[in-house]
Amino acid sequence: MADENLDIAIIGGGVSGVYCAWRLKQEKPNDKIAVFEASNHIGGRLLSVRPPDIPDMVAELGGMRILPAVQPLITDLIAELNQELPKDQQIELYDFPVDEPQNIAYLRGVYLRLADFTANPDKVPYQLNFLDQGQSAGSVIVNAIEQIVPGITNSNLSEEERREMAQQAEFGGVPLYKQGFWNVLLRVITGEAYQYAEDVGGYDSTMCNWNAADAIPWYLSDFGVSPVYKGFSNGFQQVPLTLAQFFQQLGGEVRLESNVSNIVSKAGGFEFQSQGRTIAAKSLILAMPRRALEILAATSPVLQEIQPLIGTVTPRPLFKLFTTYNSPWWRNTGITITVTDKDGKDQAVYVPVQAGRSVTDLPVRQTYYWPQSNGEAATQGHAMLLASYDDGDNTGFWDGLRARRRQPRAPGLDAAPLADPFIGEDDNVQRNELTWHQYKAPRMMTEEVTRQLTLMHSLSYTPKVRNAAYRDWGDDPYGGGWNSWNIGVKSWEVKHRIVQPTDLPLFICGEAYSDAQGWVEGALQTAGYLLAKFGVAPLPH
Amino acid sequence: MADENLDIAIIGGGVSGVYCAWRLKQEKPNDKIAVFEASNHIGGRLLSVRPPDIPDMVAELGGMRILPAVQPLITDLIAELNQELPKDQQIELYDFPVDEPQNIAYLRGVYLRLADFTANPDKVPYQLNFLDQGQSAGSVIVNAIEQIVPGITNSNLSEEERREMAQQAEFGGVPLYKQGFWNVLLRVITGEAYQYAEDVGGYDSTMCNWNAADAIPWYLSDFGVSPVYKGFSNGFQQVPLTLAQFFQQLGGEVRLESNVSNIVSKAGGFEFQSQGRTIAAKSLILAMPRRALEILAATSPVLQEIQPLIGTVTPRPLFKLFTTYNSPWWRNTGITITVTDKDGKDQAVYVPVQAGRSVTDLPVRQTYYWPQSNGEAATQGHAMLLASYDDGDNTGFWDGLRARRRQPRAPGLDAAPLADPFIGEDDNVQRNELTWHQYKAPRMMTEEVTRQLTLMHSLSYTPKVRNAAYRDWGDDPYGGGWNSWNIGVKSWEVKHRIVQPTDLPLFICGEAYSDAQGWVEGALQTAGYLLAKFGVAPLPH
Repeated sequence: MADENLDIAIIGGGVSGVYCAWRLKQEKPNDKIAVFEASNHIGGRLLSVRPPDIPDMVAELGGMRILPAVQPLITDLIAELNQELPKDQQIELYDFPVDEPQNIAYLRGVYLRLADFTANPDKVPYQLNFLDQGQSAGSVIVNAIEQIVPGITNSNLSEEERREMAQQAEFGGVPLYKQGFWNVLLRVITGEAYQYAEDVGGYDSTMCNWNAADAIPWYLSDFGVSPVYKGFSNGFQQVPLTLAQFFQQLGGEVRLESNVSNIVSKAGGFEFQSQGRTIAAKSLILAMPRRALEILAATSPVLQEIQPLIGTVTPRPLFKLFTTYNSPWWRNTGITITVTDKDGKDQAVYVPVQAGRSVTDLPVRQTYYWPQSNGEAATQGHAMLLASYDDGDNTGFWDGLRARRRQPRAPGLDAAPLADPFIGEDDNVQRNELTWHQYKAPRMMTEEVTRQLTLMHSLSYTPKVRNAAYRDWGDDPYGGGWNSWNIGVKSWEVKHRIVQPTDLPLFICGEAYSDAQGWVEGALQTAGYLLAKFGVAPLPH
Repeated sequence: MADENLDIAIIGGGVSGVYCAWRLKQEKPNDKIAVFEASNHIGGRLLSVRPPDIPDMVAELGGMRILPAVQPLITDLIAELNQELPKDQQIELYDFPVDEPQNIAYLRGVYLRLADFTANPDKVPYQLNFLDQGQSAGSVIVNAIEQIVPGITNSNLSEEERREMAQQAEFGGVPLYKQGFWNVLLRVITGEAYQYAEDVGGYDSTMCNWNAADAIPWYLSDFGVSPVYKGFSNGFQQVPLTLAQFFQQLGGEVRLESNVSNIVSKAGGFEFQSQGRTIAAKSLILAMPRRALEILAATSPVLQEIQPLIGTVTPRPLFKLFTTYNSPWWRNTGITITVTDKDGKDQAVYVPVQAGRSVTDLPVRQTYYWPQSNGEAATQGHAMLLASYDDGDNTGFWDGLRARRRQPRAPGLDAAPLADPFIGEDDNVQRNELTWHQYKAPRMMTEEVTRQLTLMHSLSYTPKVRNAAYRDWGDDPYGGGWNSWNIGVKSWEVKHRIVQPTDLPLFICGEAYSDAQGWVEGALQTAGYLLAKFGVAPLPH
C-alpha cells in the first residue's frame, strides 16, 4: 500500500517540470499533482543568485539568456506570465551584448581587440587561408556550413525548414545525421580555421563531434546569423519560480529536497520512493536530462528498458565562476579612438571595456563584464564579472582546483562544503543565509582565475576579489550544462518517441531531447509535446 | 551447488592475469587454477596483428614498447622467458626510434622538421618566452617540473626517490597530490608553452589534470630524460601468449570467450557465473582495469562496496590506426643536406623520412613509420604506417567515422561488424581467418586518415591504402588505453590497499593501479604485490 496517491507526479523542478505542472493543473484543477525536486530550489539549471555586495546585479550561475527572434516558446511564455503578474513583479528583459569591438581576445599569446579579426587580419595568429582571413569566427563556420548543406544559410528559411534540410542532407554520399559535426567541418575548412573558430567562439563543445544534422541548424540559430540576446533583470530563475508559484496558487504541491528513487510500474500506474515514503501516481513525468535519468534508472526497472533511448544524447559540462570587486577595473583596458566632432575637429575618445565578453584560449575562455539589472554597464562602484564561462576539457582544469566531484550535498545546501573556501569580504559578517554562500568558490580557484584575468587583460595587477561563486553543471544529477544528440540518431524521431517511450503513462521531457539543446526553448518544446499527450494546447502565440 | 570448483580463478587474460597464473601455478602445482578471458585472445591491451600483405611486420594495435632503463620487471621477465623458450621462439627486441630530426611537425598550419624546434626556433609558431624558445617540448616540461619540485629532475635520483619526493612535495603551500598536473604546470609556464608541449609531445591526456604527484615522476620516466625505447620483433603480445603457454604447460587452464559476472562471496570463497555455469573459487583474482571492474561490479555485490577504491583512477582513451601501402611513400618527404666527405668535398645527401614519428595538431596527431621485425626501416616494397596514434578529444574525432561505440562483439570476433568497411587489396581473396580482419577500419575513417596524412606530409597525392586496421581502447571492457590517478588520491597507499581490498581472498591487479600506468611494467608491479600475498617471490633480477 502506498503512503500517498497522486494523479500526476512530476520528478524534476526545472523549467520543463514546473511548466508542465502549471499547464496540467490549469487543465485538470481537480487532479492531485506534485512536483518532486531533489535540490533545495526550483529552477534546475536556471540559478540566479544575488551577490552579497551588489544589490543591482544578479549572477546567472546557470542559463542566462534567450534569443527572442528564434525562440517563440519562451518569448510567448514570458508574455503570458507577465499578463498575470502584478506590475512590480514583471519579468523584465534587457539587451545582452556579447562581442563589443574594443573587447579583448588573448589568443596564442597575442593580444587583440575583437575588431582586429576583421579589421587587422594580419595580426590574427592563425594560418587562415585566402577565404577565411578577415572573417569573423562565426562567418568561418557559417561559410563552412553552406558548403556542407548548400542553401541552408539562406536567411529566408525558417528554423523548421533548416532542420528539415539538414535531416535530409547527404554529405560525401552519407546522410548527414550519420556524421559528426567536427568530421564534416574538417572536410571543408582547414584545421587552423577550425581552431580559430573554436578559440574565438569561446566554446569547445559546440563544434565537437555531435550529430551534424542537429549541430548545423542549432549552430545557425545560436551563433550564426548575428544573434540578438536578451538577459533577465531579476534573473532567468524568475521564470521557473513564477511557474511554480502559479502552480501552487492553483493548489499544486512543490516538494523541495525530495529525492525520488525505485520507480516501479504498478496497476497501470507507478510507485516510487521519496523521503522514506512510498508514493503512487497514475501518471509520471520525468522532467530531467540524461544523467539524472540514468541515476534514476539504476534503481528503477521501468527505466532500464529504455536505456538505449536515454543514451541518444551526450551531456556536455559547462562551468561558470563569478567574481565581485570594489570597482569595474576592466574599464581601464579600453582603447582611445579619434572621432571627428560636428565642427570637423578630431577628438580623442576613450572607449572602455565594460559590456559583453572578452575571450582567451586560457582555461578562463570567456569573461563577461556583467551588466546591472537594467542592462546598463557598471561604470563605478561594486561590480561583477562572469570571470570564467567554459566547457569541454577546460571544466577539468577548474575541477582540479576544487573539492572532488560527486561528493554529497550537505543537508539543506545545494553543494558539498568546501575544505578551503575563498574568504570574501562579506565573511566578516555572518550572512550564510544568502543563497550565494552555497556556491562559494574555493580559494585556489579564485586565485587562479585572478591570475588568468590579470594576464588576459594585459595587466600586472587587478584589485582584490570581494566574493566568488561558481557552478559546475557537469556535477550530478545534471551531468552537463547541455546535451547534444549523438551521431547516427534520428533526433526528429527520438524527440517524439521519448516523450512517452512505452505503453505506460510515463513521460519524459526537458532540454536534453529537443531541437534547442541547452536552451529553455528546448525544454518548453518537449514539454509542449508532452502536454499534447494530455490534451493541453500550446500557449497563444 | 557449483558446477565446478577451483582453487584460484583469475579473471582477465591480460599480461597481469597470465603472469599471476604462471607464477602461482609454478608455486602451487596441485592447485586448480584457471584464467577466464572474455575476448577471443590472450593479451588484453597487448594486441599484435600481422597485416595481410607484409610478412615481416607486426602491427601493434595495443602496447608497443618498453623502456628497459627504468622498467626492470618487464626486462627481467623477458630474460626469464627467453631462458625457457627454444631458440627459434625467443622474444627479440629492437631499438624503437621516436624523434628523428628530419621528421615532420605540421603544427598550426606550419611545416617544420623536428630539428627546427631547437635549430630554428623563429620558425616555431608558438609565442614562447625567452626561456622556452629553442627548447624541445620535453625540455619545456622537465624545466617546469624542476620549478614545481626543485631537485626532482636530478638524474642521479632513482625512480623510487623521485616518487617519494613528489609524494612529499608541496607546491604553493598545498600537497602536490591534492593538485592537478595541468593546474601546477600552468602556474610555472605560459599557456603557449603548455600548448607547444602538448602539440609536439603528441598526447593530449598525459598533461591533463591528473594527480600531479603521480604525473611528475611518470612523465620523467616516460618522456623526460631522453628515453630509449625497445620494440618487439614478433609483437609485444608474444609476452602474454608465452606466459599463458607456460601456465598451460604446467596444467593451468585458459578459457577464452568466457565472460564472468555475478560474483558473490560464499563460504569464505566466491561463486560466479561464466558461460551459463556456476563456478566456485577459493581465491579470486581480478586482473583488469577500472572500467572492466565497474562492469563486473554492476552484477557483483562484493565489488560494489569497494567502488570508491576502484574509482581512484580515470580511464584515458587511446586510438591506433594502421594502414599498409605498396611502397614506403613517406621516404620521399625527407631532406637533402650537405655533408663534407673525407676529401673535404661537399656532398648532397638525401635523408629520407623512414623511422620514428611525425607529429601534427590535426586529429592524426602522431604517425609512426613502422619498422620491419628486425627494427630496420622499410626502404622498399610493401610498408606500413601507424597512421594515427592519438588520445583525448581526438579519439572522439575518429569515433565519428565508425560504427557507434558499445556495440556487442560479433560471436567469435573481437569487435562489432562494420556497416561500411574499407575494402582493402586482400579482400579479393577470402582470408577472413586472419586476425587483422577483425580490426578492419571503416571506409570513411581510412579516407579521412589518408587526407590528413597527405596534408601533414605536404603532398598532393599518396598511394592507395592496401589495408587498414584500428583499435579504440576506450571501448568496453577496457574503457581506456591507460588509467591515471585522480587528484587527491594517495596512490602510494591505494596501490597496496587495492591488491586485497577487503578481508576476503579477493585480489586486484593490473596497470590501472600502479606507478607505471599505461605500461606493462605497471601491470607486473601490481601483479608482484599480489603474488607476495600468496608467498610468491619476485623473479631474479
